[in-house]
Amino acid sequence: MAGNQFGKLFSVTTFGESHGAAIGGVIDGCPAGILLDLNAIQADLDRRKPGQSAIVTQRKEPDEVAFYSGLFEGKTTGTPIGFAIHNTNQKSHDYSHIKDSYRPSHADYVYDQKYGFRDYRGGGRSSARETASRVVAGAIAKQFLSGITFNAFVSSVGPIRLEKPYQELDFSESEKNPVRCPDPDKAKEMEAYIRQIRKEGDTVGGIISCAIQNLPVGLGEPAFDKLHAELGKAMLSINAVKGFEYGSGFAGSELKGSQHNDPFNEDGSTKSNRSGGVQGGISNGMDIYFNVAFKPVATVMQAQDTINSKGEKVVMEGKGRHDPCVVPRAVPIVEAMAALVIADYELIRRTNKL
Amino acid sequence: MAGNQFGKLFSVTTFGESHGAAIGGVIDGCPAGILLDLNAIQADLDRRKPGQSAIVTQRKEPDEVAFYSGLFEGKTTGTPIGFAIHNTNQKSHDYSHIKDSYRPSHADYVYDQKYGFRDYRGGGRSSARETASRVVAGAIAKQFLSGITFNAFVSSVGPIRLEKPYQELDFSESEKNPVRCPDPDKAKEMEAYIRQIRKEGDTVGGIISCAIQNLPVGLGEPAFDKLHAELGKAMLSINAVKGFEYGSGFAGSELKGSQHNDPFNEDGSTKSNRSGGVQGGISNGMDIYFNVAFKPVATVMQAQDTINSKGEKVVMEGKGRHDPCVVPRAVPIVEAMAALVIADYELIRRTNKL
Amino acid sequence: MAGNQFGKLFSVTTFGESHGAAIGGVIDGCPAGILLDLNAIQADLDRRKPGQSAIVTQRKEPDEVAFYSGLFEGKTTGTPIGFAIHNTNQKSHDYSHIKDSYRPSHADYVYDQKYGFRDYRGGGRSSARETASRVVAGAIAKQFLSGITFNAFVSSVGPIRLEKPYQELDFSESEKNPVRCPDPDKAKEMEAYIRQIRKEGDTVGGIISCAIQNLPVGLGEPAFDKLHAELGKAMLSINAVKGFEYGSGFAGSELKGSQHNDPFNEDGSTKSNRSGGVQGGISNGMDIYFNVAFKPVATVMQAQDTINSKGEKVVMEGKGRHDPCVVPRAVPIVEAMAALVIADYELIRRTNKL
Amino acid sequence: MAGNQFGKLFSVTTFGESHGAAIGGVIDGCPAGILLDLNAIQADLDRRKPGQSAIVTQRKEPDEVAFYSGLFEGKTTGTPIGFAIHNTNQKSHDYSHIKDSYRPSHADYVYDQKYGFRDYRGGGRSSARETASRVVAGAIAKQFLSGITFNAFVSSVGPIRLEKPYQELDFSESEKNPVRCPDPDKAKEMEAYIRQIRKEGDTVGGIISCAIQNLPVGLGEPAFDKLHAELGKAMLSINAVKGFEYGSGFAGSELKGSQHNDPFNEDGSTKSNRSGGVQGGISNGMDIYFNVAFKPVATVMQAQDTINSKGEKVVMEGKGRHDPCVVPRAVPIVEAMAALVIADYELIRRTNKL
Repeated sequence: MAGNQFGKLFSVTTFGESHGAAIGGVIDGCPAGILLDLNAIQADLDRRKPGQSAIVTQRKEPDEVAFYSGLFEGKTTGTPIGFAIHNTNQKSHDYSHIKDSYRPSHADYVYDQKYGFRDYRGGGRSSARETASRVVAGAIAKQFLSGITFNAFVSSVGPIRLEKPYQELDFSESEKNPVRCPDPDKAKEMEAYIRQIRKEGDTVGGIISCAIQNLPVGLGEPAFDKLHAELGKAMLSINAVKGFEYGSGFAGSELKGSQHNDPFNEDGSTKSNRSGGVQGGISNGMDIYFNVAFKPVATVMQAQDTINSKGEKVVMEGKGRHDPCVVPRAVPIVEAMAALVIADYELIRRTNKL
Repeated sequence: MAGNQFGKLFSVTTFGESHGAAIGGVIDGCPAGILLDLNAIQADLDRRKPGQSAIVTQRKEPDEVAFYSGLFEGKTTGTPIGFAIHNTNQKSHDYSHIKDSYRPSHADYVYDQKYGFRDYRGGGRSSARETASRVVAGAIAKQFLSGITFNAFVSSVGPIRLEKPYQELDFSESEKNPVRCPDPDKAKEMEAYIRQIRKEGDTVGGIISCAIQNLPVGLGEPAFDKLHAELGKAMLSINAVKGFEYGSGFAGSELKGSQHNDPFNEDGSTKSNRSGGVQGGISNGMDIYFNVAFKPVATVMQAQDTINSKGEKVVMEGKGRHDPCVVPRAVPIVEAMAALVIADYELIRRTNKL
Repeated sequence: MAGNQFGKLFSVTTFGESHGAAIGGVIDGCPAGILLDLNAIQADLDRRKPGQSAIVTQRKEPDEVAFYSGLFEGKTTGTPIGFAIHNTNQKSHDYSHIKDSYRPSHADYVYDQKYGFRDYRGGGRSSARETASRVVAGAIAKQFLSGITFNAFVSSVGPIRLEKPYQELDFSESEKNPVRCPDPDKAKEMEAYIRQIRKEGDTVGGIISCAIQNLPVGLGEPAFDKLHAELGKAMLSINAVKGFEYGSGFAGSELKGSQHNDPFNEDGSTKSNRSGGVQGGISNGMDIYFNVAFKPVATVMQAQDTINSKGEKVVMEGKGRHDPCVVPRAVPIVEAMAALVIADYELIRRTNKL
Repeated sequence: MAGNQFGKLFSVTTFGESHGAAIGGVIDGCPAGILLDLNAIQADLDRRKPGQSAIVTQRKEPDEVAFYSGLFEGKTTGTPIGFAIHNTNQKSHDYSHIKDSYRPSHADYVYDQKYGFRDYRGGGRSSARETASRVVAGAIAKQFLSGITFNAFVSSVGPIRLEKPYQELDFSESEKNPVRCPDPDKAKEMEAYIRQIRKEGDTVGGIISCAIQNLPVGLGEPAFDKLHAELGKAMLSINAVKGFEYGSGFAGSELKGSQHNDPFNEDGSTKSNRSGGVQGGISNGMDIYFNVAFKPVATVMQAQDTINSKGEKVVMEGKGRHDPCVVPRAVPIVEAMAALVIADYELIRRTNKL
């Protein structure tokens, strides 16, 4: 119930704090017989790791994953896959500025209230470092789901928006720029904006969009566990996320039914896809696409008024190397969480019919 | 795994189709010793029931709940609360127009694909009728959580939006008009718009906003089970929902960190609340507020091209009495799902500390 | 977590007290497309119902099950199956003798301590009446698992034991006598013993044995969810059960490895079956067989010293119509729980391989 | 669902095979603020480790646990506790004798059938090596439950039985002999018997008994999750276990109700304790005691006829260093699983009342 597990049949349980010895987890329920490409897993980790470009945090962490179990002769065995990423960056830091003070819009205060005390080194468990474990699990889920594609990309940074529908984009462009925006011109604008924000000692939010393609019909359950509901939970569980919409989304609420309905083709596909690939909580074989809103990183390199644990006013200034904008590094996390949801529902789907 | 259960410690498992003998469920994990006000439960059901005003479906269903267990001398006993709402509207209808045809943007097609056949009477399990059971469970959760308030309301109908922040609204106005919008002027505009849409044989979407107030600090878990992630899933599991955002939401993605951060007061509360009452997935004692986007109802009273189960083109026209706009009746459903989430996390919170 | 649900993929959630309006439940995860024989379900309920013979309780309860959902045109739809058994025997009784007193070896005292108060009418939730709901769910599980057979029978009553191995028994004899012992001579002995015990105003325990046959290989999971571990939990969750053993059981602990090992035949079956059909927690295709020990019913028709809720000594005498021996009526319950376990693992098995 | 997790609120998820890089797991839901004695955890591991005496396997594995997360300044933080035990004994062995052959009464055959192939090095996931992770988690559960005592001991080895009730034993004697039998004379007999069995190249089964003392009233849930049902599952999930009984157990099935009932004292305790500390699935504050039957280890140092994966007859002889009797090393495992069950129910108990 402490919520460190995601997925029911294809699940991952994660552990680890930002400044502990290691982070990692256990992937349970992965079917036997999948020949795993370990390089592809590391490649997804590298897309998430710090220090990969000039517009993300300059911390250096190699984030190499070690697998302890569940693999034999290159294939999954059906038993749990234990893994760890050892922290190499554990030198003793000076935490005196945050030990007794509560950073604005961080979780310091709520941890103290909830647990009675907290691990004050970095963000502890609430650090986005935990998501590296999700990327490992998601990369394995992707391989289980070979054929289904997951393409996330940055569609806005602060006020700069990519307005094109995803169908007009070339996803292969995303990895060619540090922002991970598949439109090269918009990518340049976004990159310049992030550089400027960083100079100001500030941070900025953004939006990641994602398309899941080549899905079978029948993933998802009718009532509480609608496919898009679990996708929404998955995305909202990523650090800094403030909103989720799929298909026509918030804009769809303005439409009339006669405008919104998707007419069928004779093969059961639909001419339009305002439904976003899901009907009644169940995939209909069309593309699933959705948007995920990220708030700006709370750690700014500016002096801020705040309080300490005694309730006294103090002034605090951000230290260390932080991301000016989180969305470029969050792209593989969005894909990983999407893959974990789909993998789980693919296994559930096997149990629905006689 | 078939997803008819919501909640872990305070849970409800629902059953029932729109045209079967009864719908209902089992509430498990409700603590012992709560003196239940059964009238308050029925009152929430009445807010959801068909036929309550001129702008909702004119079907007549009294939706009276019968409790079978878990109560003794007016109080919860700690054992499961079984309940049912018998369908009174079960006369034999003519379903020939939908038996073999797939209604656009309905779940007919995916059900046939997923299960091999379907109960074609009305929407079957995918009918929003299932949400009456959620309202029963949520009304009990509210009573368990006495002191915490849940106020949902309609904040947009199609293009008509209530722009005022929730703090400037008088929630007691919501129940005074059939739209459930707490601004009387906007409510009139919305009502007129829905009447016009109905005349056109069309439907329209909308947005429900909700504020949860007087929360304790410490509800929610740090990683996958962040409080807002579960709230998001809860809302996205309601029929017709396309999006969820909380606190600053999608608009927050445009801001800078220096604009977005919420400065602390000396008592641990915050001067602003762009965080929406949650930090790192854990409630911080401030108000939680969020928006839920609903698409327009797919059943329109207009001829539509579609296909039948053989993949042949057919023309179909909506029959029966359907809602031109779903949001007025969905207000108590949003509150119910919010209360179920908070009740579950309140029980989990009891287990966090030594 | 309140433990009123059994099974993960094929699950039943039950509700109801002995003297409430109804008992019942929700079966979730039952695959779509099973043509259900409702008479077979009622037949299993009839094997469990009171008043069926002279050696069981003489209460009259028809125990007729009503299904509310999840069935269409005779087949399961893949949606939850809601059902209820209405209590017909709800006339106002005199409970004054148990309202404030704690019956020895009943749950009265622990309920008051755990929940702060209790429903003192009959056994409340701890009454074995709850198991009628399990029989309904188990009867459906049996139909899902057509081909696999579940034969439980009474193998001892008090000191009278049936020593023959199950392979030498004709299971069709079990239902020909009120004890449900497949050996007609032993059955007569047992019946006579129960009649004598009842005359003494006393009760007696017994053992139920069960064989599950025609199982596929591969049911069960290696670590915590070993097939026999879940079978054991299922049996121990039945009222009055004190022990469970499978295969060689307790006697197997006395043997040497060279005596205990089961040699393979060339087709993968084994020449002996001390393993009881399970290796490493996974079914090996051989018969699963096990024993379940039941204590004597605690309600005796004799005066007993006990205490009231104030801790004062009182004398109490059993009233009403109770079973002198529980095992004849528990036979279908053992089968039902076994079928629920196997159904659940059959669904899990579908998810193990690529 | 793959069953590598135990516990709902206080849970452990384990990973690892006998001959992989490491075994370990994640403990989730352990409350914050427990000052952990790491030496006590290692001490329990040392009671389970190979090579500790002349009557157990002579393999040398130090079984040192490394903690990766969830601890700060010596205390649990409320976040997941990740841990690993690295295998030091990974030199390349010769597995040719088991690679293609199925050892009698081992899980080789069922793994191949279930998963399509298997990790043939040692027992893979079905090796009892996995239980070291359970001992780590159980040792932490014991510290959370300080005050409640868990004393398991060997009560029989093959035909040699300790007949004394547990109340007459001095538990502190158990650790003074290699058998872990608290009766010094019986311990010597058992030790001599195991030595003789080992000389014969054979193995033998046995029984472990356990007493849990100083429990609060109210642990356990009324229906499926009865306290003793979960204890039974926990014990049956340990490798080689064939049976579980608690309180009066199988012998209780022979008694009359008038003999079996436990009369109350005025303080709610009972004069006798045939109930074994549990009424209606809920702890009553009296001692819980139970017996767990273990079969003989299947690997014997004698030639056995068996088959290979092609179904051909082959002769196989055990190699390596195996336990002649598993019960001495299984004592801390029984305690660990008992502690995990009680810890889980202690957390659930906090949620039962208003």
